[in-house]
Amino acid sequence: MNAFKNIIDTYKLQDPAATNAFSIIINYPGIHAIFFHRIAHFINKIGLKFLARFVSQLSRFLTGIEIHPGATIGKRLFIDHGNGIVIGETAEIGDDVVIFHQVTLGGTGHDKGKRHPTIENGVTISTGAKVLGNIRIGSNSKIGANAVVLKNVPKNSTVVGIPAKVVKLNGEKVNISL
Amino acid sequence: MNAFKNIIDTYKLQDPAATNAFSIIINYPGIHAIFFHRIAHFINKIGLKFLARFVSQLSRFLTGIEIHPGATIGKRLFIDHGNGIVIGETAEIGDDVVIFHQVTLGGTGHDKGKRHPTIENGVTISTGAKVLGNIRIGSNSKIGANAVVLKNVPKNSTVVGIPAKVVKLNGEKVNISL
Amino acid sequence: MNAFKNIIDTYKLQDPAATNAFSIIINYPGIHAIFFHRIAHFINKIGLKFLARFVSQLSRFLTGIEIHPGATIGKRLFIDHGNGIVIGETAEIGDDVVIFHQVTLGGTGHDKGKRHPTIENGVTISTGAKVLGNIRIGSNSKIGANAVVLKNVPKNSTVVGIPAKVVKLNGEKVNISL
Repeated sequence: MNAFKNIIDTYKLQDPAATNAFSIIINYPGIHAIFFHRIAHFINKIGLKFLARFVSQLSRFLTGIEIHPGATIGKRLFIDHGNGIVIGETAEIGDDVVIFHQVTLGGTGHDKGKRHPTIENGVTISTGAKVLGNIRIGSNSKIGANAVVLKNVPKNSTVVGIPAKVVKLNGEKVNISL
Repeated sequence: MNAFKNIIDTYKLQDPAATNAFSIIINYPGIHAIFFHRIAHFINKIGLKFLARFVSQLSRFLTGIEIHPGATIGKRLFIDHGNGIVIGETAEIGDDVVIFHQVTLGGTGHDKGKRHPTIENGVTISTGAKVLGNIRIGSNSKIGANAVVLKNVPKNSTVVGIPAKVVKLNGEKVNISL
Repeated sequence: MNAFKNIIDTYKLQDPAATNAFSIIINYPGIHAIFFHRIAHFINKIGLKFLARFVSQLSRFLTGIEIHPGATIGKRLFIDHGNGIVIGETAEIGDDVVIFHQVTLGGTGHDKGKRHPTIENGVTISTGAKVLGNIRIGSNSKIGANAVVLKNVPKNSTVVGIPAKVVKLNGEKVNISL
């Protein structure tokens, strides 16, 4: 229950349009997707892979957000809008991460095993960004809208574009290819 | 009723695949989304914020198009395909605007109050474009597919890329950063 | 029936997370979308355009994948995730093509008649890519995530960015504007 109180507090904090707990529980698909994922992830862990996948796909139908049951998600994930999000089987998401609609944490087709990204604590991923492959996004970094990230991103940086370049690092403007 | 006759005429004009009024009313999610938004916007205005938001989220589930009840939308908006569209609370859209699927009129997280864009009359926003922040898109301008627009755009221009640059202005080819 | 055995084998081959035929039939929206499209395409061919469009829109609601009934699709199309895909009326897709979520095979508004792309055999189109206009994507080429492709693409090439450039051709690194 604490986990859900945490999540509702997160939504109140992050969204200027969020008003009260009841409205958030009913009206925020991101909340529903995380709720379904906790169930699917547990079912997956005890080996019922078909049922886990079915819960995940039911959640995709209801919320537009597709999270593979195997994905590992930390505390207080804030999903805004959410429609079109895809999170792959071996993705790992830390605490206090913000993910907007149409973000993909996906694969490149080159890797086996761990083939999706690891997102460290406090990262924000803006709408439409694609983060692909077994890469690591350093803590508190920001990924710009529609960016395509294929390499590791250092912490405390802002990356934008296709392919994504670092345009800010530790608060200073830079222009560094990854 | 006039408003809906207007909208149907718009869809017939804009889409070479649109055939007759009945087919448009049944088969075009953009029509449904605008219909739900008119209701949600009215309910929001009279202060029933939870119910307004609920209608908006029901519309998102049925159409894949998410329009905050507070958003202001002009006449003859043409939404093509529509899935993945997000329009924020303080966005303002003029008349005769065309918006394709996966377009976001969103915020950057830096602003309070008016934090979403203003789209002037006759603007076309192509699929996947993200228009973010309290900026103004000048009348009759075109925003290219997957563009990311973070600054004001002059009227009669075409902007493309990440971040978006002006590549056409008043019919002449140019290359201007915003 | 053979067509569906083909499709299930394709999904097993392409997705490391796909386990068995039953799970694929139930849990893969790409399968459902292709199933609905085969029906809609047939209904469209015999002239029942309204009903064909209705089946297509029902499929969009259930799967998040919008394929116009008129589109021509070859054998063993693999649609991964799929949410947000839009395929236009005059698009033509060859055999063994792979299309990820949020891909658009759309129009530019400049053409009449054949106004959507032709995708040759063995092409892979990554998530978020927009392929627009009456253009041809050569066989076995790859289109990068969030790329915007407005011109013909040679076969055996990799194209990325906005607008898309060729970065690989016949296995060698290149940098060629289209």
